[in-house]
Amino acid sequence: MAEAGLDAIILLSPESFRYATGALPGVATMWRNAGAVAVLIPADETSEEAAVVSDLFARSFRNTSHITDVRESPIWVETTNLEAVDPELPPEEAVATAWHSSGRSEGFQRPETFDPMNCYRHLADILSERGLDRARIGFEASAISASDVGAFQAALGNVVLVDASDLITRLKMVKTAEEIAHLRLAVEIAEGGIRAVQEAIQPGVTRNALAEAWKMSIENHSESKALSGSWEYISVGKNPWGGNAAASPGDLIKVDVGCLVNGYTSDTGRTFVLGTPCERQTRLFDALMDGFVAGSDLLRPGVPLSEVYRATLAGIRAAGFPGYSRGHFGHGLGAGLGSEEWPFISARSDVIFEPGMVMAFECPWYIDGLGGMIIENQLLITDTGHEMMNRLPLDLVRIPV
Amino acid sequence: MAEAGLDAIILLSPESFRYATGALPGVATMWRNAGAVAVLIPADETSEEAAVVSDLFARSFRNTSHITDVRESPIWVETTNLEAVDPELPPEEAVATAWHSSGRSEGFQRPETFDPMNCYRHLADILSERGLDRARIGFEASAISASDVGAFQAALGNVVLVDASDLITRLKMVKTAEEIAHLRLAVEIAEGGIRAVQEAIQPGVTRNALAEAWKMSIENHSESKALSGSWEYISVGKNPWGGNAAASPGDLIKVDVGCLVNGYTSDTGRTFVLGTPCERQTRLFDALMDGFVAGSDLLRPGVPLSEVYRATLAGIRAAGFPGYSRGHFGHGLGAGLGSEEWPFISARSDVIFEPGMVMAFECPWYIDGLGGMIIENQLLITDTGHEMMNRLPLDLVRIPV
Repeated sequence: MAEAGLDAIILLSPESFRYATGALPGVATMWRNAGAVAVLIPADETSEEAAVVSDLFARSFRNTSHITDVRESPIWVETTNLEAVDPELPPEEAVATAWHSSGRSEGFQRPETFDPMNCYRHLADILSERGLDRARIGFEASAISASDVGAFQAALGNVVLVDASDLITRLKMVKTAEEIAHLRLAVEIAEGGIRAVQEAIQPGVTRNALAEAWKMSIENHSESKALSGSWEYISVGKNPWGGNAAASPGDLIKVDVGCLVNGYTSDTGRTFVLGTPCERQTRLFDALMDGFVAGSDLLRPGVPLSEVYRATLAGIRAAGFPGYSRGHFGHGLGAGLGSEEWPFISARSDVIFEPGMVMAFECPWYIDGLGGMIIENQLLITDTGHEMMNRLPLDLVRIPV
Repeated sequence: MAEAGLDAIILLSPESFRYATGALPGVATMWRNAGAVAVLIPADETSEEAAVVSDLFARSFRNTSHITDVRESPIWVETTNLEAVDPELPPEEAVATAWHSSGRSEGFQRPETFDPMNCYRHLADILSERGLDRARIGFEASAISASDVGAFQAALGNVVLVDASDLITRLKMVKTAEEIAHLRLAVEIAEGGIRAVQEAIQPGVTRNALAEAWKMSIENHSESKALSGSWEYISVGKNPWGGNAAASPGDLIKVDVGCLVNGYTSDTGRTFVLGTPCERQTRLFDALMDGFVAGSDLLRPGVPLSEVYRATLAGIRAAGFPGYSRGHFGHGLGAGLGSEEWPFISARSDVIFEPGMVMAFECPWYIDGLGGMIIENQLLITDTGHEMMNRLPLDLVRIPV
């Protein structure tokens, strides 16, 4: 923030809210419209952080987050708390008493869904109380639509608003010990699932049956309660894009899967072949492996991501495929939208590896008429190098027919 | 469009893309950043619609959509099509031949993820070819962030851009026969799941066991292949917000669930009680039912949604709870983000019911210390009234202990 000349930043996306508060953003964020939640983080560390939350999630927020300055906005869901109300009271009186003691005013009205202006007014109050009402404030412009940003700017009055989306993304790049633990558990569960898929591969097995084996395995894992989701891109045979093909000898089986723990997704890719691979399969896979090995050597603090990109690309191209192109060979892992988050191991990345980053490093190739192939690990950048978080072998594994 | 004085509209969100094209928006939309896909719909019906899609999803788009003017943007995923390549060629030559015949140029480079400017340049070309390069164009401003909108506006040069988000939302309000069929199948599968939950209710059964019964039932439905997802908010006992309580006599069991068919979600809510309800449970539930009946009578073409809201609210309040407040008593159903889409049955809605709208109509109440309650049906507005798409009874169903 100091570098960017900012006095504070305002977070608006549900992902950033969760990252900065540790708490659930709540149901009002389901449409991803801004103004359902917000977090203010002042640059001055002696000034307190603050959060705006929905009334429905205020209690869970207070039980979860380190942030104690909490402002509430009512949302559409009607609630009543009878826990502390005299059980002898008749229903009507009990309900009226509960609302009264929760501080509900006469004529209280809930908004249709949620009122972003309510959230922005809270932000204006918070800024004013901290003497920041004419300050330079970075906000998450990537999380507010062109339709909505005018109202946000108007509500904040005299502050100077600066798009701090890139800074906010950058803050999320290095993971905490807790985040790393989520990602470690997620990949451990996922690897069990990949082993289950491997065991299920045999002539005649369908793509959907392999997907079922994946799902059963992760749901039966001893830590399955920690799972908040999962995803799979499994393909069987010559069509790398799914369908429900049944496996025949010579078929590639591509397994690109992830488990989510507390919203943090793992990402691992492995390739199997039923029986013996043909020459094309072997040569293309070997090219990917050449790239993977070339890139892996550079996964350490201080190395630019773009250098890993170039080494990986050069490795694949040198194996006989000078036209091979791919936008990135990996990406950050976290609790973002989708399975891939910034930064990317790409030609134009300006990011340099730092300890604490958790990344997926991958060499995929999707070939209609031959099948899908992928080599993908997730890894932690350590103080001196990297730690691969996967245990499974990387090779094109042959499944005996 | 004519009313709004627009010559064309540009859709940017993955949901609107899917609605207007019938095709999958593809993996590049996972981050929800604008510029991965776009659709242009001219007001002049003699002028052709056009779509910008990723190269990875271009084939599936052409196989699915009625739109034939398709422009492609390359994304990060590397592909090769060997289907039509001579199987005798050595691997390196086969791959080079495939890329060459797909029209790949020398030095082809894929972007890190996707390049929104590529999409916007295609849009500029399309507008220019249709003589719309100085026209008044409505765009989906709600689907492009404040960070990104400047580049979009700059790329489209001399057109007059108008925020048409509300118009686009309104166009999606009335459903096609196909969309209605999706929603009909989705609720049929969901009702089977609710029946399975009901059968599993007994003393000691946990919330998670009921959720499992729901999931097993919908996954074993004969049409389960049509499912693209599901969700459940089931609660057991005095805490309406989940946890894993085990049912005791007198407990409420709230079942608010949905199935997705091709992305279209159903939405149904039912309430059960294990054994005999207490007076508070009965009186509060009866109040919800009074509201539900009062509102149901008005669900027909020509009636303002706000009138249904007022009648429903009045029904609940008149039953002894004058302080009851809720933002809406229902919402559109479709393939939007989250389970609820615009329009809402709310106090300030300016929408009037039209034939072909599919809505959820609901009276929920979440009471800490008593439990969750909901009465919710989904319905189709017909030419003369409405058709409830649910078959299950609405009452507070008593499960014998």
